[in-house]
Amino acid sequence: MVETRKISLQTQGHCDTIDITAQVQQQLTELDMDNGMVTVFVSGSTAGITTVELEPGLVSDLQRMWERIIPQDISYDHDRRWGDGNGYSHVRASLLGASLVVPFGGKRLMLGTWQQIILIDFDNRPRSRQIVLQFIGE
Amino acid sequence: MVETRKISLQTQGHCDTIDITAQVQQQLTELDMDNGMVTVFVSGSTAGITTVELEPGLVSDLQRMWERIIPQDISYDHDRRWGDGNGYSHVRASLLGASLVVPFGGKRLMLGTWQQIILIDFDNRPRSRQIVLQFIGE
Amino acid sequence: MVETRKISLQTQGHCDTIDITAQVQQQLTELDMDNGMVTVFVSGSTAGITTVELEPGLVSDLQRMWERIIPQDISYDHDRRWGDGNGYSHVRASLLGASLVVPFGGKRLMLGTWQQIILIDFDNRPRSRQIVLQFIGE
Repeated sequence: MVETRKISLQTQGHCDTIDITAQVQQQLTELDMDNGMVTVFVSGSTAGITTVELEPGLVSDLQRMWERIIPQDISYDHDRRWGDGNGYSHVRASLLGASLVVPFGGKRLMLGTWQQIILIDFDNRPRSRQIVLQFIGE
Repeated sequence: MVETRKISLQTQGHCDTIDITAQVQQQLTELDMDNGMVTVFVSGSTAGITTVELEPGLVSDLQRMWERIIPQDISYDHDRRWGDGNGYSHVRASLLGASLVVPFGGKRLMLGTWQQIILIDFDNRPRSRQIVLQFIGE
Repeated sequence: MVETRKISLQTQGHCDTIDITAQVQQQLTELDMDNGMVTVFVSGSTAGITTVELEPGLVSDLQRMWERIIPQDISYDHDRRWGDGNGYSHVRASLLGASLVVPFGGKRLMLGTWQQIILIDFDNRPRSRQIVLQFIGE
């Protein structure tokens, strides 16, 4: 059985980090499906999906990591060609990845106690985002 | 329903970046499956899969990112033991990841407008690559 | 068909790298399933899953990469707030990712010859880990 749902989000860009765990769990609760996996996929090339223990300290630690390894203030060929100023956003998104797969059983996501599913929006401006949730199971 | 397909590619190595979106979509079109997900998996330990807005500027921006965080010209224990000279290729591939999962609906991959599926071949020589596409859906 | 299995591991933390390929293949062998995909997911926010050609040189090369891009000895807001001393472990785990999807056919994982599935435990102390294996196929 396959069920597809979408979440629409408004983000602030600039590494805005949004916990979508409750929304994924809520969609799962409403389905006639007990065991399986959900693919969490962000359509777009300047945002990514991962998990984290979400607390303000780690949100800023993650932002500093991105600034160290993929800084905003160096030169990007993408910006020279297109003038968007968001070359760093694209590179960060490609490294983090657009999809995450989480198994569930007994209608519960099998996350750790302190492990949340997050979207990080790397773009340099506020964005409307669509996240696809695709549940496959029985 | 499960359907497995394979794509064979010849790459140039050295961060050769190949857009496989059209081939994944083409395989999907030929299947008797409308909704589900495809796992894109590269067999091998010196290449990875991700998504990007594929244009030449970002291809070189990504290459510079890899050179910054996992440089080719530092010492690797792998190279001291095996003499392959591609220790950096292995480390880059492990960080990027060998698999990507993309949902589809109505026989269309749910990618963003400017979001392509790419293989990056990190090896230090041309390679023949096999990419597994596994479609699960209905 | 959906089948869920769990692997329990004792790790040493500190980038302890554990090959779980044989255990994943063993679980697959015992199932009444020939073709499909397995999601390998680690519950917890200080460990991650990927693939690598597992030999001691690359294990130390990977550890040096983590020390370069997400060092242990810089300041983390997470540590200032919670005193765990494992802020770097969380950041590394979020970047690497908690899940990996591997296709299988004819009851064999479709890995490359030298490609193993590994857990890396980034925490700063020994941990008990649960890895979820969820097989979907036919």
